[in-house]
Amino acid sequence: MSKETITKIEIEKAATSKINDVDFNNLSFGSIFSDHMFVCDYKNGSWQTPKIIPYQKLMLDPSARVFHYGQAVFEGMKAYKDDEDGIWLFRPDENFLRINKSSKRLAIPEFPEEYFFDGLNTLLKLDNKWIKKGFGNSLYIRPFVIATEAGVSASPSSEYKFMIICSPAQSYYGGEVRVKIADHYSRAASGGFGFAKAAGNYAGQFYPTNIAKEEGFQQVIWTDANTHEYLEEAGTMNVFFRIGDKLVTCPISDRILDGVTRKSVITMAKDLNIEVEVRPIKVAEVLEANKNGTLKEIFGSGTAAVINPIAGFGYKGDKWELPKIENSYAKKIKEAIMDIQYNKAEDKFGWRIKVD
Amino acid sequence: MSKETITKIEIEKAATSKINDVDFNNLSFGSIFSDHMFVCDYKNGSWQTPKIIPYQKLMLDPSARVFHYGQAVFEGMKAYKDDEDGIWLFRPDENFLRINKSSKRLAIPEFPEEYFFDGLNTLLKLDNKWIKKGFGNSLYIRPFVIATEAGVSASPSSEYKFMIICSPAQSYYGGEVRVKIADHYSRAASGGFGFAKAAGNYAGQFYPTNIAKEEGFQQVIWTDANTHEYLEEAGTMNVFFRIGDKLVTCPISDRILDGVTRKSVITMAKDLNIEVEVRPIKVAEVLEANKNGTLKEIFGSGTAAVINPIAGFGYKGDKWELPKIENSYAKKIKEAIMDIQYNKAEDKFGWRIKVD
Ligand SMILES: Cc1ncc(COP(=O)(O)O)c(C=O)c1O
Ligand SMILES: Cc1ncc(COP(=O)(O)O)c(C=O)c1O
Repeated sequence: MSKETITKIEIEKAATSKINDVDFNNLSFGSIFSDHMFVCDYKNGSWQTPKIIPYQKLMLDPSARVFHYGQAVFEGMKAYKDDEDGIWLFRPDENFLRINKSSKRLAIPEFPEEYFFDGLNTLLKLDNKWIKKGFGNSLYIRPFVIATEAGVSASPSSEYKFMIICSPAQSYYGGEVRVKIADHYSRAASGGFGFAKAAGNYAGQFYPTNIAKEEGFQQVIWTDANTHEYLEEAGTMNVFFRIGDKLVTCPISDRILDGVTRKSVITMAKDLNIEVEVRPIKVAEVLEANKNGTLKEIFGSGTAAVINPIAGFGYKGDKWELPKIENSYAKKIKEAIMDIQYNKAEDKFGWRIKVD
Repeated sequence: MSKETITKIEIEKAATSKINDVDFNNLSFGSIFSDHMFVCDYKNGSWQTPKIIPYQKLMLDPSARVFHYGQAVFEGMKAYKDDEDGIWLFRPDENFLRINKSSKRLAIPEFPEEYFFDGLNTLLKLDNKWIKKGFGNSLYIRPFVIATEAGVSASPSSEYKFMIICSPAQSYYGGEVRVKIADHYSRAASGGFGFAKAAGNYAGQFYPTNIAKEEGFQQVIWTDANTHEYLEEAGTMNVFFRIGDKLVTCPISDRILDGVTRKSVITMAKDLNIEVEVRPIKVAEVLEANKNGTLKEIFGSGTAAVINPIAGFGYKGDKWELPKIENSYAKKIKEAIMDIQYNKAEDKFGWRIKVD
């Protein structure tokens, strides 16, 4: 982000800021948005002049493609502030590449790199006050693209809106998380678009997750739709299993989101001399490891919480609690990654990018 | 629809009609909408007073759930006008039941039956002039529900909009249709929501369909995501194969939309003394039948075209043309169903419902 701004962005500043109405000590995730938003329209075959304007409602035709055919993709990333008011992003190049990968699979035109980074940079500087200092505080950044063309013919839209909206977030503690391992419902098909951060991958999870909630779980760990024998990922997290002193996670595929946090966890674990195996992992193996006492930890990885330790799990009506553990990998890896995110530790992998 | 109107619908009429600007002889599917639309909001745990208002744009927060998590379902149905200006619907109860089935799977609250039918009835009477007489003309009706709550937390919305918009349609002739049988990409997972008419089932088909188009096809016939050995359905049509004098179509499952036209084709074919088999059908069987000359017809069934004959197909790089046929089942069944839709024939199955 230190390269020169070359994009001509039209900026319309908000007349007043909403920031004084916000209680930054009581934020619920993703419900309050900063003063400005980035918008860029696609029409007549190209992306138009990007704009930053006051956060405001959208006007769309009821027949807009996004409402009917789900042509929409998004990203989730965060900006962090260090003790010297420096603003940092964590591996934003990964999010940029991923939104275009998602777009391609959904027949959405890819977004230009300069527009993305210049837009993000300019927006974050303008809404700089919304990024609060303090370990765990951040500004959650939501880039997304929606199909806006009017008309209900089932074909790709010729018009789109690329937007970035930002929401202040606190250190995320979701309470104790227990997960249900899916044995009937599924999230994605082989040959489908589970690897994309596409709108259509999320709504389908709500109903099975509601059922899991009634059974005392907070989330579902999805298994392969074909056999339900292999563990894949959770609704908004990739998953890791610590068996003995090894960390195991499944490989990515066209059904699984290639999480930025997952990648970082794998690299960081290795750096901390933790052995990592990326390989298919059977439900049966985890049940067996649990039985013989070698299953030490399960955790999810994702931008929202970095790492979310899992306290217990269930499968086909049975439930198990994981023992409390000293020397948790989850804790160690989370701290090491957060130290990089908040500019508290050396960044030997080149993950941290300054906004300036 | 002859039951008494009990719902209190608030009606705001359009000041002027757009109808005189419309060239009814040159309609492109789903691009022009009638003067009014039906809207009903869900909030605070219940559906509010339904309204009919002039067709107009929607104002939504950029963080509205539908843009991010694809929580949206829809229906497609038609109104027909007979020679005496009677307005008819075709099996609308099926569409009502199906939209609620779709909603349930997407964790969207179900819509009350009276609101649906009274809303539809009132809207069609108000926009009566938009339904043109003439065999093949119709008013395409698009009920849909979108999640409108602001906020990007990945959980079911607490607010929704149920809407009905209407678009005049002409007799649909899509040109000669050739289909590609999928061998890599797929549409739906077992345990997923392929059976729902959910927004998220459509955008994922655009990219593979674009590839098929480059190869000279117009549409894709999806196969099962697991083995790609079994034929399932097309993007917006169920599919039928005539092998010898038998009509074969695959059973519905949680991956396949339970088409109203499919059901009607099965019933009508039997009534016309055509033998129908509903059973899993392998790609290999169709290829073999094609080779030995017993594959006589392939056609798709759906609300838009009733029946869409398929002229040729391809699989793994090979392409075949189907012979022209006299005494086509496609033609015979289509005419018999359309005669019922347009009140030209006796309705012995009770499919036709009058709007009055
Ligand atoms: C389905 C899914 N899996 C995994 C993740 C984790 O990805 P990341 O680490 O890039 O946030 C996410 C996003 O947060 C997700 O939506
Ligand atoms: C995926 C899919 N299959 C089949 C159909 C045909 O269903 P129907 O006959 O109810 O229009 C449709 C809708 O038109 C569809 O979207």
